[in-house]
Amino acid sequence: MSSKLTPDNDLELFFSADLIPDQVKAQLHPDVHLRPLASTDYHRGHLAVLSVLTVVSDPGESNWLVQYHSMRAASKTYYPIVIVSKQTDQIVGVGCVFIERKFLRGLGSVGHIEDIAVDKSQQGKKLGLRIIQTLTGISENSGCYKTILNCSDENIPFYEKCGYQKKENEMAKYAPERAQPSPRL
Amino acid sequence: MSSKLTPDNDLELFFSADLIPDQVKAQLHPDVHLRPLASTDYHRGHLAVLSVLTVVSDPGESNWLVQYHSMRAASKTYYPIVIVSKQTDQIVGVGCVFIERKFLRGLGSVGHIEDIAVDKSQQGKKLGLRIIQTLTGISENSGCYKTILNCSDENIPFYEKCGYQKKENEMAKYAPERAQPSPRL
Repeated sequence: MSSKLTPDNDLELFFSADLIPDQVKAQLHPDVHLRPLASTDYHRGHLAVLSVLTVVSDPGESNWLVQYHSMRAASKTYYPIVIVSKQTDQIVGVGCVFIERKFLRGLGSVGHIEDIAVDKSQQGKKLGLRIIQTLTGISENSGCYKTILNCSDENIPFYEKCGYQKKENEMAKYAPERAQPSPRL
Repeated sequence: MSSKLTPDNDLELFFSADLIPDQVKAQLHPDVHLRPLASTDYHRGHLAVLSVLTVVSDPGESNWLVQYHSMRAASKTYYPIVIVSKQTDQIVGVGCVFIERKFLRGLGSVGHIEDIAVDKSQQGKKLGLRIIQTLTGISENSGCYKTILNCSDENIPFYEKCGYQKKENEMAKYAPERAQPSPRL
């Protein structure tokens, strides 16, 4: 199988690839590569993979880049990762952990895992598990005393296999339409 | 009742007090004042109020200030608020919302409400409700399409009265002891 994969060295990565745990790299399916989000990933289908989760409108590349740099400016806060197909150089999996700093627990931090998605064509390669292992590892290596995520009832068994336990309930309030300005572009 | 309250103008506030919704100010119990966290709040019992939630070790004022400024450096991310007794100038309630930026939902944002605590001496003044109203207002006025929080089963009815609905399940993984460095002071 020929590889079209763009090497990490040719990319501007969101954070250092050294933070990807070695254990995950060793277990990763050989068809794919796992790395931090890169500044050119708009062109590798980043938003298409996210669209399995919810509404994903296309803001255009320049607005995507504004968001990328705005998130990156919040130092040591966001850690977005992608899984890329070696054959196509296209993104087939995504996830993010952001690190919340607190005043309690001795000025502790908590990692929040968000927006895990894997392309349906990639089932059976344990990519969801590798994403969770990577983000949990980044969270724990950042000193977080816990890592949390929200999931539906049917996904609880998967996250239990990843070492997570049900703790509390997620409550949500959607903003009234009038209170929602256009995405700040 | 004589007031010992330090005026907002004499404080360095975490964010602009203009972001506190007028409606909340109008409904607030007259014994108390609601404002953004201030750089001198270490001396007003900030950590003592948080200690009703979980383990709160005292890191000392200088380390508390490092955390304060580190959180403030992440622009438009953290919005910590406090409720102060006018009689004592001590903190009797706290809460925080942080704004998470995403690539989905048209580069949308989500507000995460965290670490709500009210001193037991203040029950019956609806301070918990005022904190939730304030943080939800800040989140929605920041353009967040939804605001979320995690709570125990017994607190679901309270948050339903605040306009929230149960959505998903919070899953948590605590870091192994060996992976927890001392708080980065």
